[in-house]
Amino acid sequence: MTHLVYPGALHTRFQHVIGAMHLMGLAIETLRGKDVQISEEEEEAVLAAILLHDVGHGPFSHSLEHTLVEGVSHELISSLLMDKLNIEFTGRLDLAITIFKDQYHRRFLHQLVSSQLDTDRMDYLNRDSFFTGVSEGVISFDRIIKMLNVKDDELVVEVKGIYSVEKFLIARRLMYWQVYLHKTVIAAEQMLIKALARAKELSNRGEKLFASPALEHFLLNRINKETFLLDESHLTWFTRLDDTDIMSAIKSWADHPDLILSKLCGKIIRRELFRTEMSNEPFSESYLEELRERVAERFGLSAQEVGYFVYDQVVGNSAYDSSTGKICVLDKHGELKDIAEASDLSNIEALTKRVNKYAVTYPKEIGYITQHQHTIINI
Amino acid sequence: MTHLVYPGALHTRFQHVIGAMHLMGLAIETLRGKDVQISEEEEEAVLAAILLHDVGHGPFSHSLEHTLVEGVSHELISSLLMDKLNIEFTGRLDLAITIFKDQYHRRFLHQLVSSQLDTDRMDYLNRDSFFTGVSEGVISFDRIIKMLNVKDDELVVEVKGIYSVEKFLIARRLMYWQVYLHKTVIAAEQMLIKALARAKELSNRGEKLFASPALEHFLLNRINKETFLLDESHLTWFTRLDDTDIMSAIKSWADHPDLILSKLCGKIIRRELFRTEMSNEPFSESYLEELRERVAERFGLSAQEVGYFVYDQVVGNSAYDSSTGKICVLDKHGELKDIAEASDLSNIEALTKRVNKYAVTYPKEIGYITQHQHTIINI
Amino acid sequence: MTHLVYPGALHTRFQHVIGAMHLMGLAIETLRGKDVQISEEEEEAVLAAILLHDVGHGPFSHSLEHTLVEGVSHELISSLLMDKLNIEFTGRLDLAITIFKDQYHRRFLHQLVSSQLDTDRMDYLNRDSFFTGVSEGVISFDRIIKMLNVKDDELVVEVKGIYSVEKFLIARRLMYWQVYLHKTVIAAEQMLIKALARAKELSNRGEKLFASPALEHFLLNRINKETFLLDESHLTWFTRLDDTDIMSAIKSWADHPDLILSKLCGKIIRRELFRTEMSNEPFSESYLEELRERVAERFGLSAQEVGYFVYDQVVGNSAYDSSTGKICVLDKHGELKDIAEASDLSNIEALTKRVNKYAVTYPKEIGYITQHQHTIINI
Amino acid sequence: MTHLVYPGALHTRFQHVIGAMHLMGLAIETLRGKDVQISEEEEEAVLAAILLHDVGHGPFSHSLEHTLVEGVSHELISSLLMDKLNIEFTGRLDLAITIFKDQYHRRFLHQLVSSQLDTDRMDYLNRDSFFTGVSEGVISFDRIIKMLNVKDDELVVEVKGIYSVEKFLIARRLMYWQVYLHKTVIAAEQMLIKALARAKELSNRGEKLFASPALEHFLLNRINKETFLLDESHLTWFTRLDDTDIMSAIKSWADHPDLILSKLCGKIIRRELFRTEMSNEPFSESYLEELRERVAERFGLSAQEVGYFVYDQVVGNSAYDSSTGKICVLDKHGELKDIAEASDLSNIEALTKRVNKYAVTYPKEIGYITQHQHTIINI
Repeated sequence: MTHLVYPGALHTRFQHVIGAMHLMGLAIETLRGKDVQISEEEEEAVLAAILLHDVGHGPFSHSLEHTLVEGVSHELISSLLMDKLNIEFTGRLDLAITIFKDQYHRRFLHQLVSSQLDTDRMDYLNRDSFFTGVSEGVISFDRIIKMLNVKDDELVVEVKGIYSVEKFLIARRLMYWQVYLHKTVIAAEQMLIKALARAKELSNRGEKLFASPALEHFLLNRINKETFLLDESHLTWFTRLDDTDIMSAIKSWADHPDLILSKLCGKIIRRELFRTEMSNEPFSESYLEELRERVAERFGLSAQEVGYFVYDQVVGNSAYDSSTGKICVLDKHGELKDIAEASDLSNIEALTKRVNKYAVTYPKEIGYITQHQHTIINI
Repeated sequence: MTHLVYPGALHTRFQHVIGAMHLMGLAIETLRGKDVQISEEEEEAVLAAILLHDVGHGPFSHSLEHTLVEGVSHELISSLLMDKLNIEFTGRLDLAITIFKDQYHRRFLHQLVSSQLDTDRMDYLNRDSFFTGVSEGVISFDRIIKMLNVKDDELVVEVKGIYSVEKFLIARRLMYWQVYLHKTVIAAEQMLIKALARAKELSNRGEKLFASPALEHFLLNRINKETFLLDESHLTWFTRLDDTDIMSAIKSWADHPDLILSKLCGKIIRRELFRTEMSNEPFSESYLEELRERVAERFGLSAQEVGYFVYDQVVGNSAYDSSTGKICVLDKHGELKDIAEASDLSNIEALTKRVNKYAVTYPKEIGYITQHQHTIINI
Repeated sequence: MTHLVYPGALHTRFQHVIGAMHLMGLAIETLRGKDVQISEEEEEAVLAAILLHDVGHGPFSHSLEHTLVEGVSHELISSLLMDKLNIEFTGRLDLAITIFKDQYHRRFLHQLVSSQLDTDRMDYLNRDSFFTGVSEGVISFDRIIKMLNVKDDELVVEVKGIYSVEKFLIARRLMYWQVYLHKTVIAAEQMLIKALARAKELSNRGEKLFASPALEHFLLNRINKETFLLDESHLTWFTRLDDTDIMSAIKSWADHPDLILSKLCGKIIRRELFRTEMSNEPFSESYLEELRERVAERFGLSAQEVGYFVYDQVVGNSAYDSSTGKICVLDKHGELKDIAEASDLSNIEALTKRVNKYAVTYPKEIGYITQHQHTIINI
Repeated sequence: MTHLVYPGALHTRFQHVIGAMHLMGLAIETLRGKDVQISEEEEEAVLAAILLHDVGHGPFSHSLEHTLVEGVSHELISSLLMDKLNIEFTGRLDLAITIFKDQYHRRFLHQLVSSQLDTDRMDYLNRDSFFTGVSEGVISFDRIIKMLNVKDDELVVEVKGIYSVEKFLIARRLMYWQVYLHKTVIAAEQMLIKALARAKELSNRGEKLFASPALEHFLLNRINKETFLLDESHLTWFTRLDDTDIMSAIKSWADHPDLILSKLCGKIIRRELFRTEMSNEPFSESYLEELRERVAERFGLSAQEVGYFVYDQVVGNSAYDSSTGKICVLDKHGELKDIAEASDLSNIEALTKRVNKYAVTYPKEIGYITQHQHTIINI
């Protein structure tokens, strides 16, 4: 939904994986130039792994990840689809899958696909920066790649590249707060999620809603991880879903007699997006309660239904999370250090902190509640 | 369908009109700097006119222009929608509409919206060039705009800008042949047109096809210019249609029992596009006949049905068509000349020729018919 | 002197040859991908040839080519310097020199260095376009390179690349008229040439002028092709000359007692450049005479000396000169055609015409002579 | 000398001030759009101030700032030149000079010219980043400018711009360490400084060296702040100096009989630059002593002369130095905070630390001294 804030951001996951595969090719070329042996088979496998790493994403990706199907991550779906393709290719994806699952002994190949400094992030930061016009996200991917090396089968970065990596971490943080977690973007995403949830609820009550065959499958069936794995048809239907199923349905539901559904869909279509307030501290329960009461009154909603129109959430991000994997710096003596220690500027240490913000989203029709004392930030 | 050849080409008409409006702003600023009087009201009107000039395009624009509705041009629909908006804005669009229809005495304002050197073309050439990566289409819009002037209420270009305008005409010609009329693009467009036509035919026979409510309206009703103007509901439904209605239907129709429909739709979805051959001379009737026979046999089609799978057409373009309006050059003595005469290089004269090419499109399954003698060009 | 009109144009010949060598690398890679055999030795040689092809240029390159030394072309000096380097490298440049001189049987290697479609032109057009900001000069070098092929040891271009080549020819023509032959650029160049000529004249009369040792060598000695080849010290001094010798002298000469020299130098330094008028027809002798008289009177010059302040010249260019080598197009049947015939649009034919313009340059102090009837063009 | 490491970095101070003036224009437009009153006179003055703010820089700018003239800063010379121009313009620069000297009561005008967030820095960071290709230096100047505001006549930045400013500070730091203080750049600069110092020493001993008249003036005269202010001819000669005087002399001095001078100059010309080692801790005196001994022995230098070939220095930078002026953030309640406090991420606090590194530079001929235990960093 980012394009509702940054109109240029219409690029697709297809473009992204082509780009990430291109960066992977550059990384392989660089590493081979430093006498890291990578066989033809390993090259093909790691290129296939990055090409397919996002294949399990459904329409609107993260926004709808837990709406259409409960508790089934896109990584699991990617994995299932790779297995299906592997059968089609009679085992030729064996090594790609092993690398993707981090079960290959040369761990740097997996780290090039998925780690704190992978070709996935290098591509999406630059791509999103380019298409949104938020130039803060530009990173020097070519220089970072040139600084990559391998030590004991782990991916490392040479000390000369330390500033470029620092810049990369900072760029990622800025993109989170200015783009991915932009207050209007998260408003639009929540509205979409709630519209789908409402449609699912109505369908389960037996109401007939317009939907493409694929979307209808997910509206009518309650699918969780267990059932998803048991019945292969779910995966087949999932691959037929894309953004056009969702958006053509949303357009049609804007005329549905259910007021909650039609309100949400109509407002999405006409870009009458809810207001999001963000704060560094949690909103008081009394403030949230007042918001909910006003919204309930204004739109004639029950206490239960108001959750379709008022959302409070915690959004957060840490630029560098050393608990889930480190970025190792190789110094001139061949020794490794965590980048947070290697930097002489203590900056990266600051980046390891997780930053959380509190967001509440509600229809603009109710105006502002002026008496509250929160420090509203507005980025 | 251009994105099937140039994957970056996902930009929208919305981005285009915002861009064209931006160029219009620059043009107004330039002209005022040359003491051309443009009132506040005229400025607002011409900005509104360019913002709305494409509002009547339906999904897939030119491709489907005469498929969903017969004989109703997008210009007519733009005009009808502007009239509706004008009622909503209580007449504030009066002047914009007058300019759009070329009924205003200061003709340069219309020419900035629509002529051989309008802000529409300046925007789309650069935009399409950028998103396809075909750098031949880049034009120096800022310089062209700086060279614009007005003489006797007509838009003219100063003699210093003659090379930039020549470059603009050539860029436009290159974009036609390398992008808009690219052989694979025209294959995909024809396949889409024929799929819709087949769906309409089946619907009219009483078959039930999946379609969004808006698309269903156009599948079930035969609408021509007369009926379109008589019944306002057609226009209302038209505004609800967009690409998602078409593509979600195409995906679903790939499973339809009708072989023609499912073949066309399945091939579009899987990007198994037909082959297009292009030639400077017409294809011989015997060659076309042989193609049709082979296709009919291969796919089990009647003579009537083969037209869904074999298309022959003439595609053409003239870079500078002086019969529909000229580009006038203002020399240092204040005199006007047609650009084709003013150029000292006789190049532009060459650009006035209309160039036609002959294209035939058919499924690759039938292979090549080797004996034919056409000079196949392949750009 | 182009930077006096386009301030960004400060890029150097060093940057250019690095760029051209990069394009050569891409061309080799493309040709090898099409099964054109190119040995390691040939690759090194053609890369060395393009790297060194401009090494014989002196300061201000074309402007001063025939001022410091008479009748010694930069190609000859390049050749002499390559021979010297070859001795240093004990013969390792043998093949590079053979290719550079077009004495190698695989002529396409020479054509990649020097022809109507060489990597030299591809680099300088894009580079000059980039640094001047004249976007008309942008060419699609990557696409042209991808379309290159070899047939019977000659460089050819595949028919799919015909529009890109046409665009390349047009871009080159536009760059000539908008940049290289820009009226203010040719004024500045002539002023520089005449300042050097005057300094040489004064030196030969025995006057002492400030000059670096290298520049002094060329001011004091009258060197022509014969003496240049006989006495190796001329070449050695030539390699020590660069723009800084010229410009530090020009600055100092602005204070010289000779009025002609100090006027020219002072005006160059303060960017008080002469006016150039350009016309499609020759200027009448009477007009030129009147200009000379006014200038002589205004600046107190003799009839002989007025040539330092009034310059008339013919400047010309043909975008595609088939008499000095053709661009051959390879069609799908493996046959070759001259591009001027292969184009279906007769455009390129127009580009083969040589276009001449007439330029006269003189100090602005004398104002305009209004009665003349020339069509002044002003691009 | 940066172009010896980044060959594209040939841009000039002229381009920079034109660019900074352009940004100033944008800043004025933005502030006026926020109802900050700026009169026509103030606008002209602040544009003139930024245009002239660097006019006092001599050749090679910071490198030679204290070599040609002792104890005379470029700011002082800028100020003297503005005063001279002001006489020429009969007082029209009065306000520009008042703003430049920070004596105008509306301090934000001075802060736009010179502060931690001025248009000077915004221009040079982006420009240097562009021409070196170090993309880490790219900043979002347009967004920062849009976020500027004025409160109580002080320049402030709105809270929405906090990430862009943070990015700006980080970009500046990265540019310092990767470009301005690059180890090879500081080697070249020191070599140039020492060559000039040697030339000055030789001149003062009575040796005749080639030099342009302007350079000769500064070689022969020992000029300090007092004498510079007393004798106006120093300023006049200073304005005649530029890079061409220095480089044409350096080239000629490469043949000088003095071994120290000719060695330094020859190595600069042939790009045989000394090696720089950088460390986070000071080098031990014994290590430096050993370097000096080896160099003295290798080149036959006295203990006094070895300083021409071995340089040790401390280089340092703080990205944000709140002691010399703050960046104030304006929150939504209209209150001001220092950016180091306003950032929720404590990152900027880290940027306030001054970081020093220790650098030692010496000829590569002496090889490495392997036994030392310094942590050599090599960026």
